[in-house]
Amino acid sequence: MAVMIRNDVFNCFVFYGVLLVIKMYMIAILTGQVRLRKKAFANPEDALRHGGLEFHREDPYVERCRRAHINDMENIFPFLFLGAVYSLIGPSLSVARLHFLVFFLGRLMHSAAYLFALKAPTRSLAYTVAQIPCISMAFQILMAFAAYA
Amino acid sequence: MAVMIRNDVFNCFVFYGVLLVIKMYMIAILTGQVRLRKKAFANPEDALRHGGLEFHREDPYVERCRRAHINDMENIFPFLFLGAVYSLIGPSLSVARLHFLVFFLGRLMHSAAYLFALKAPTRSLAYTVAQIPCISMAFQILMAFAAYA
Amino acid sequence: MAVMIRNDVFNCFVFYGVLLVIKMYMIAILTGQVRLRKKAFANPEDALRHGGLEFHREDPYVERCRRAHINDMENIFPFLFLGAVYSLIGPSLSVARLHFLVFFLGRLMHSAAYLFALKAPTRSLAYTVAQIPCISMAFQILMAFAAYA
Repeated sequence: MAVMIRNDVFNCFVFYGVLLVIKMYMIAILTGQVRLRKKAFANPEDALRHGGLEFHREDPYVERCRRAHINDMENIFPFLFLGAVYSLIGPSLSVARLHFLVFFLGRLMHSAAYLFALKAPTRSLAYTVAQIPCISMAFQILMAFAAYA
Repeated sequence: MAVMIRNDVFNCFVFYGVLLVIKMYMIAILTGQVRLRKKAFANPEDALRHGGLEFHREDPYVERCRRAHINDMENIFPFLFLGAVYSLIGPSLSVARLHFLVFFLGRLMHSAAYLFALKAPTRSLAYTVAQIPCISMAFQILMAFAAYA
Repeated sequence: MAVMIRNDVFNCFVFYGVLLVIKMYMIAILTGQVRLRKKAFANPEDALRHGGLEFHREDPYVERCRRAHINDMENIFPFLFLGAVYSLIGPSLSVARLHFLVFFLGRLMHSAAYLFALKAPTRSLAYTVAQIPCISMAFQILMAFAAYA
């Protein structure tokens, strides 16, 4: 148990990883709130409880929240794998923290750009910035583990 | 290798985590079966094999299965990260098992509520119940790791 | 830190896991390229930047890329959990490598079948082949950890 706790890079990774998971939970909560406020439900049983079957419908802002959430899954879940393994190959703490922090800030900006519909290419830029440390970690891991293919 | 195997909290987490992954696989299999039975395929090449391009169409129950599956990804995948890390911060086995069991039962109920279209707010309630141990683990981890930000 | 690095099964798992994450990233990049080429954007702000709101629309091939990506999330993310835990229960390296390699090749074939719209049931077959090692790992893990329920 104490093995990983003594790995400061892993601990730093966990801190930002958990913050990003909480960020994803907040998008889920926001989606639910927007569904209630806009009266736009994905399921007839929810619509029935909130006024009638006519509210079983789509709403552009609900769909926007959904896209933000799915994009998070596509990018934050791989980070949770890459960051954990990267922590095991012995990077320096300062370089590793820079990887985690750039990803964290990039994904925060991505969510803001999505939810506030900021002018393009803000969101694409945030996505690209966040992918740089992921690609960097992926290739460092591949090189460290290539002998085990 | 033996380090984690000797951590009973981690072992308990793994047991429920794997059951939940199998539960997700079952929703995928169900979706495929419903597509065949309702003749509603997402891809023209599948429709062609099963009777013709007119079966390249959507079906409400297939879409319901899809939503159940995607909601599982949004919630069960973060649990697989949070539960693993939570196992490393030394919680008591009985408290940890309670976290894992509540999440497991909440997600079982969520799937049942989705697939049988149970009256609202059954599904939302199951979602909320399952999120409580996740939020609890997330904040315990954040407190344990805050010094490594 | 060195504990896991000395586990050859884990190292082999990591190698294929990272390759699959990179494969998923490539589908994301492809989706973006197809959106630009076909002028089919999910968000009005992107359409505005690339010619006008009339390009805020769906395109069948973009949707195909999206389905390939989501199917990857449904299957590759659980593999990243199952493979890591399976590495801890002491399988022989050759048997474990076979599990990882079959999953890896099955998912490569799945992506090819999806993106090139290969004749059914090529894609379903690739999905099924890749699920076999996952089901095998899941049940081996359950048996190893059942005492900790």
